[in-house]
Amino acid sequence: MKIGFVGLGNMGSAMARNLLKAGHAVTVYNRTRARAEEFASIAASPAEAAAGEVVITMLADDHAVDDAAQELVKALQPGAIHVSMSTISPALSERMQQAHTQAGQGYIAAPVLGRPEAAAAAKLFILAAGPADALAACRPLFDALGQRTFILGENPPAANVVKLSCNFLLAAAIESLAEAFAWTRKAGIDPQVYLELLTSTLFTAPVYKTYGRLIAEEAYTPAGFKMPLGLKDVRLALAAAESSNVPLPMASLIHDHMVGALALGFENLDWSALGRIAALRAGLAPL
Amino acid sequence: MKIGFVGLGNMGSAMARNLLKAGHAVTVYNRTRARAEEFASIAASPAEAAAGEVVITMLADDHAVDDAAQELVKALQPGAIHVSMSTISPALSERMQQAHTQAGQGYIAAPVLGRPEAAAAAKLFILAAGPADALAACRPLFDALGQRTFILGENPPAANVVKLSCNFLLAAAIESLAEAFAWTRKAGIDPQVYLELLTSTLFTAPVYKTYGRLIAEEAYTPAGFKMPLGLKDVRLALAAAESSNVPLPMASLIHDHMVGALALGFENLDWSALGRIAALRAGLAPL
Amino acid sequence: MKIGFVGLGNMGSAMARNLLKAGHAVTVYNRTRARAEEFASIAASPAEAAAGEVVITMLADDHAVDDAAQELVKALQPGAIHVSMSTISPALSERMQQAHTQAGQGYIAAPVLGRPEAAAAAKLFILAAGPADALAACRPLFDALGQRTFILGENPPAANVVKLSCNFLLAAAIESLAEAFAWTRKAGIDPQVYLELLTSTLFTAPVYKTYGRLIAEEAYTPAGFKMPLGLKDVRLALAAAESSNVPLPMASLIHDHMVGALALGFENLDWSALGRIAALRAGLAPL
Amino acid sequence: MKIGFVGLGNMGSAMARNLLKAGHAVTVYNRTRARAEEFASIAASPAEAAAGEVVITMLADDHAVDDAAQELVKALQPGAIHVSMSTISPALSERMQQAHTQAGQGYIAAPVLGRPEAAAAAKLFILAAGPADALAACRPLFDALGQRTFILGENPPAANVVKLSCNFLLAAAIESLAEAFAWTRKAGIDPQVYLELLTSTLFTAPVYKTYGRLIAEEAYTPAGFKMPLGLKDVRLALAAAESSNVPLPMASLIHDHMVGALALGFENLDWSALGRIAALRAGLAPL
Repeated sequence: MKIGFVGLGNMGSAMARNLLKAGHAVTVYNRTRARAEEFASIAASPAEAAAGEVVITMLADDHAVDDAAQELVKALQPGAIHVSMSTISPALSERMQQAHTQAGQGYIAAPVLGRPEAAAAAKLFILAAGPADALAACRPLFDALGQRTFILGENPPAANVVKLSCNFLLAAAIESLAEAFAWTRKAGIDPQVYLELLTSTLFTAPVYKTYGRLIAEEAYTPAGFKMPLGLKDVRLALAAAESSNVPLPMASLIHDHMVGALALGFENLDWSALGRIAALRAGLAPL
Repeated sequence: MKIGFVGLGNMGSAMARNLLKAGHAVTVYNRTRARAEEFASIAASPAEAAAGEVVITMLADDHAVDDAAQELVKALQPGAIHVSMSTISPALSERMQQAHTQAGQGYIAAPVLGRPEAAAAAKLFILAAGPADALAACRPLFDALGQRTFILGENPPAANVVKLSCNFLLAAAIESLAEAFAWTRKAGIDPQVYLELLTSTLFTAPVYKTYGRLIAEEAYTPAGFKMPLGLKDVRLALAAAESSNVPLPMASLIHDHMVGALALGFENLDWSALGRIAALRAGLAPL
Repeated sequence: MKIGFVGLGNMGSAMARNLLKAGHAVTVYNRTRARAEEFASIAASPAEAAAGEVVITMLADDHAVDDAAQELVKALQPGAIHVSMSTISPALSERMQQAHTQAGQGYIAAPVLGRPEAAAAAKLFILAAGPADALAACRPLFDALGQRTFILGENPPAANVVKLSCNFLLAAAIESLAEAFAWTRKAGIDPQVYLELLTSTLFTAPVYKTYGRLIAEEAYTPAGFKMPLGLKDVRLALAAAESSNVPLPMASLIHDHMVGALALGFENLDWSALGRIAALRAGLAPL
Repeated sequence: MKIGFVGLGNMGSAMARNLLKAGHAVTVYNRTRARAEEFASIAASPAEAAAGEVVITMLADDHAVDDAAQELVKALQPGAIHVSMSTISPALSERMQQAHTQAGQGYIAAPVLGRPEAAAAAKLFILAAGPADALAACRPLFDALGQRTFILGENPPAANVVKLSCNFLLAAAIESLAEAFAWTRKAGIDPQVYLELLTSTLFTAPVYKTYGRLIAEEAYTPAGFKMPLGLKDVRLALAAAESSNVPLPMASLIHDHMVGALALGFENLDWSALGRIAALRAGLAPL
């Protein structure tokens, strides 16, 4: 297929490469051109990348996606599809859906689960929602990018809700570990013993292993996912849930702790530095 | 070894059987005698069960353990060991440690992770703390009861802290799932699809599979672990952490939701009925 | 002075009348013209109301103020002053300050404390911030509108922060009363006796008398200040505090309870219906 | 009347003096005898103080009251009345009620609102519950001690619930001020200006003036009411509410902040040092 790809961050670059490998014709666009130069076909604007059957956006936040989408709505051919894969608000997803539909274009929300390494290995999980025919048309792309695609119905914003809910669940697991490590450490338990105990008994999922280790070792830098990005996602979760009149008390709690982390200057630490916040709250010095 | 076993609930009966199978001489005591009658050697009181080298207590709560321990301190031979395997407060554990030490007796805290099926299969995880020689002496018993024993140092109450922290982490995972299911369900996501998505991607640990299914299906009865027992453990966690000056904000949040569950008459539902509380908060009718 | 007045809700109408009474020349604008007809000089647009030395805006929310301000920036004479008296976000206040300053115009934030009756009686409290000369120029207007003006420095958004913080403190007093009434009522205390006790001993401020009575009698309708407006202000408080990296855990708690109130269909009840939410959480039937 | 008075702390001494002034025959008991020596009639034990028609207890906590009560139940004449005026748990109040009733004695719970200065000036507020005849008999004593007595029904523990609920409301007002001052201070508002504004507009009650000033000036020492005492009362409130299946989310929040205050070594600061906790959370240095 002839595809435009907008947004070549760590995730986007790896994904665009996999689409090329799978034999698709990919034209890329990135605001900072240097990151685009490994690719053969480079567009000078999102609009220029929108000449094919599909354009994929994989950008940092609502603001960047909104900017790009306003160009795409003008540039896409009737019947062409915008596949929005960024982690964004369901509200923006809904506005894009309306704009593309009005313009006779297709729109799919297909955010992903997985870190850059999973993107590179084409092992992402893809959370897709949109009209059945558009989803069918994009199936080969999803297969080139991920290990499994979950179809979440015809309403694109629902996929964005699911993605945000997954990040909320990750944040909740991190916060619970943060509190448990602070408590047990103050009660005299060796953090490494505790980590081994948790992750070889009840909490065997990778999320507990990964974040448990970071908290046990207070290894908050270099950051895999920085605190302000974590806060952004929790904020999006709270706003999206609020728009459905759903309170998320755990997300509020985590939100407040993350805001407190920024107050202490943790903006370059990994979001698992909620562990340091919990330790400080308990009067513990850094390890 | 010659062992007394006090407390033949679902967990205790299975454990006592495994000790017999391993060739130990086990004398049992249970307040309700009927549950003891499958065993050959039945004591008429905890004191009578305390004639051997080791006595194990596996009872419902602090109150029951405290009552039994007061008899055991009087009855145990010098050098004999009380192995306390119930889920109790670190504060009681510390009082028992002092009483037994003063009486020239040994004391180990060795609470367990695992449900009755794991107890029956001798697949428990044992969280043991106490003097090294006493732990060494009890090693064959632990091997007969569980698949792995974690040694958590020489201070028995530390093992009780770790056990309570594990139950806190379970409760936190349940509450986070409760909120995530309420939100996504209200946003139109099918709970079964969402469950499959979560547990085949980021949240593969058994705890998410087990409790995710109960919440997805609102299958809160029959209860595997009733709400008041969950509340009791969260209350013990909060009190124990408070005694170390450690706030546990997530535990407080869960505590309040569990109290609210009892206010609505959920005392016979599984503690995963936090899922129904979250659904009610979101204005959702039962499935 | 020659004044434009934009926004003739319950508050704005009363305020515009007081300015007339004090001898100022007032041209009014309201989107719904009917509410303007009691006044002699009616503008057809915010821009048309901006012909004098000062234009005052008193509108429902950020959206309405932002729309009006975009016209005012184009229409105001150099040196003329926009006095923004609505309850809005500090972020919007800052954007307006920049826009007016760039256009050579003055900008003051001067939100108020007080209900429509206080506005009618010229008994408002005015929370004003902005350049000292502009504040001095507007002093006669403030004297015509309120009983006292607090000067909060030269930075207009600071006044908006203070206004939101006052509404947060009101919401916190309401929520604390909500929980205290639910608890004491369930413990068998007559709500009227409890109200009398509280408000004649420690809690003599009008806020406790007003909201205590509403909660004691569950008199949530007709609403003096509807739940969605309360939620809007708490949301603005959380966002403004977050932009300064300040967590407000009590505001988060109240936010979640208000979202839950909307989930139960309380959108037309007074914000003191937090009292009913607390009662429901405690398993109490309505009075 | 012939009265025993047990407990001569700052409150109790002042109260015993007022009973003497009113013409009653008062025999006092205090664990530390030195505090008793200003009085003419000194008992050597609570039992010895229990020879008259009424014995009043005014002690530090449940533990001290429980110890004294066990003596009083044995020593009081049939028909004599124990008036329990300490701030204690409703649960202990209920146990004392049962014990005294079984012994044919009377029991009233009559905790008070007011600091030592109010006690000295006989300006306490008295929150009394118990059998109507016993209340009538004690009326002259209440009149000698306080400015007003509120009758809260025939069930003594209800008065203890009301007292704890008042302390909860105080703590909630303090915490809300703590958050509001941290936020506005970080936004550049002068704390003294903010204090003046709050307490001369919406929040005129003494509680806002007293605690607002302490927080505005960070004047947390010498403590009027130390943090651990505040925490004790919040803990009693949570436990009492839980026993009625009433969640108190604001009390949980405050509880956690107080535990965090102790973790930072604030045990000798006034409970309004919640203000410093909020400031630290916001990344603010001490004033």
